Amino acid sequence: TPMNIAVIPGDGIGPEVVAEAVKVLEKAVSAEDIELQLTEYKLGAEHWLESGETLPDATLQALRGHDAILFGAVGAAPGDTRIPSGLIEREMLLKLRFSLDHYVNLRPSRLYQGVASPLANPGPIDFVVVREGTEGPYVGNGGALRVGTAQEVATEVSVNTAYGVERVVRDGFRRASARPRKKLTYVHKHNVLVYAGHLWKRTVEAVAAEFPDVAVDYLHVDAAMIFLVTDPARFDVIVTDNLFGDIITDLAAAVTGGIGLAASGNINMDRTAPSMFEPVHGSAPDIAGQQKADPTAAILSAALLLEHLGYDAAARRVEHAVIADISQRSPDAARSTAAIGDAICAAV
Amino acid sequence: TPMNIAVIPGDGIGPEVVAEAVKVLEKAVSAEDIELQLTEYKLGAEHWLESGETLPDATLQALRGHDAILFGAVGAAPGDTRIPSGLIEREMLLKLRFSLDHYVNLRPSRLYQGVASPLANPGPIDFVVVREGTEGPYVGNGGALRVGTAQEVATEVSVNTAYGVERVVRDGFRRASARPRKKLTYVHKHNVLVYAGHLWKRTVEAVAAEFPDVAVDYLHVDAAMIFLVTDPARFDVIVTDNLFGDIITDLAAAVTGGIGLAASGNINMDRTAPSMFEPVHGSAPDIAGQQKADPTAAILSAALLLEHLGYDAAARRVEHAVIADISQRSPDAARSTAAIGDAICAAV
Ligand SMILES: CC(C)[C@H](C(=O)O)[C@@H](O)C(=O)O
Ligand SMILES: CC(C)[C@H](C(=O)O)[C@@H](O)C(=O)O
Repeated sequence: TPMNIAVIPGDGIGPEVVAEAVKVLEKAVSAEDIELQLTEYKLGAEHWLESGETLPDATLQALRGHDAILFGAVGAAPGDTRIPSGLIEREMLLKLRFSLDHYVNLRPSRLYQGVASPLANPGPIDFVVVREGTEGPYVGNGGALRVGTAQEVATEVSVNTAYGVERVVRDGFRRASARPRKKLTYVHKHNVLVYAGHLWKRTVEAVAAEFPDVAVDYLHVDAAMIFLVTDPARFDVIVTDNLFGDIITDLAAAVTGGIGLAASGNINMDRTAPSMFEPVHGSAPDIAGQQKADPTAAILSAALLLEHLGYDAAARRVEHAVIADISQRSPDAARSTAAIGDAICAAV
Repeated sequence: TPMNIAVIPGDGIGPEVVAEAVKVLEKAVSAEDIELQLTEYKLGAEHWLESGETLPDATLQALRGHDAILFGAVGAAPGDTRIPSGLIEREMLLKLRFSLDHYVNLRPSRLYQGVASPLANPGPIDFVVVREGTEGPYVGNGGALRVGTAQEVATEVSVNTAYGVERVVRDGFRRASARPRKKLTYVHKHNVLVYAGHLWKRTVEAVAAEFPDVAVDYLHVDAAMIFLVTDPARFDVIVTDNLFGDIITDLAAAVTGGIGLAASGNINMDRTAPSMFEPVHGSAPDIAGQQKADPTAAILSAALLLEHLGYDAAARRVEHAVIADISQRSPDAARSTAAIGDAICAAV
């Protein structure tokens, strides 16, 4: 049976970087005895401007039929007032994550050899953030009263369930247990966010009993900020809620050399729906269509896709090709998006 | 009339660092024609263990009679299971901030000459974070259902009002307008937290019209993380909500050389109650009582206190004494808490 992948290039630099990821994916599977079937879906800000559609039910239904989704980036240009701010992000990207039950938002952070960190002494950074992907402050459960008046009240409700917290915490422990250092740090703010925080705390304590080999520690999110710049090497697996994970992973990407390299997987570990793999970066409209974008994050996301589908050898080949390419990069010789993709492809 | 200051040393290193801040305060006001009246209040984790009290009504009432409050740090040792986690923080520290309407949580971030930043190329960092202090996710408005079962649901409600957002945003603009660069960055996550985010967005746009001299930009909190490590010099005034401000200011403290130097003011700009000045750092029970703590953050907080009470010249003298002392520090010669306090005192 062929590997049946949905491709959503999206907006801005999305199509450029996804083209390179597809190139590398094709090369990687050609060595295995697998046929790669790609189906492209037009979604995003551009598509909304043309059609008024964000994510129609029929498209969501069709996406469910694929083995996995390769995603570029979505989002309007900052100045574009035709698109309500955040609409595409919520009605398309977050809708996919929630509808397809992507409860593990997996974001590895590694400082690759040859990459400049903004930190003076970064040390060996190699950790993975397991960000909850289907609840917390991202549920869209807010409201407002007397909008536009001096009496306006606006609320945002973070919803957290034992079901949702437990499955992502268990995933974090599984990953920690499979790694050499076997360390798990959970991050929250349970001295202030008592109800959600204590659900997280109790859940971590309960699941920890099943993983006696894993060393556990806790950090308030503000303290985590400090360690991420003073001692990022201390981290192995971080498990945290949706919003804290959003914040932590951008900082982690920055200290490991930028979001041009940061890959992610929106993973449904129960495989009741396809998982989705996307670079952490956005659509970067300012450099779109100029072959200036770094496709590495998209290519590493394709490696996560291969790993998720069980093609570990192919995933490792892509990863090693990327590592080899990165180690040879010169800060002075900017290459085009396609040139980077070609080089990595050749090394696979 | 004397300057009537309440002193809350608190727990851990709190008493040590506050003792130095008081020393410097006394020296600074002795040059002005002011009498300094100090009243100490015993509050914090230790006090709770002895008395079962967090912040009795009578104490809160007595505190209201002072011109300002100088605060050290509170918090139990991490391993101490006798104290419910976060209790003192919420029932005492946050209760003070909320009861005394400290809506401007002011946290300056400067990279002083002679201080090592963990960043390779920090550039000239000199910004101030105006963190909202009385609403947002800190209101304690959460709940939980079916606690301890597999069906548990825990919520946290962020409450935001036009009244609360407008006054802190206006404060941010006033401060930006008074600074040479006149730049204000507001930070939120309005692509996801639509209701709270759009209240912030509309409020900033409305208040901006009153300050045509101030240049305004917006960053999602995740993007702000990146800039705080790749280009912190871009920031002048940051205005943001209570939780984002908590996160941003610890990162800001880290990139400017650590929370040993970060001062803060919990300010009631309407002066309907005394403002409170405290180092950003915690009680650090691991080094308490050993004269190892750096009192600089507490001393700089005392300078913010002087400024708030209108003693600008005295505030500047303290600040300059701190800057002079910092520029002469050697990483190899650790001085005691008191020795640092004495040196700064002598330079005032
Ligand atoms: C675009 C936005 C909704 C998204 C998020 O907040 O999750 C992005 O920042 C990310 O981290 O993937
Ligand atoms: C101790 C805690 C409640 C507090 C906060 O979250 O505001 C602290 O982190 C701070 O930043 O002053």
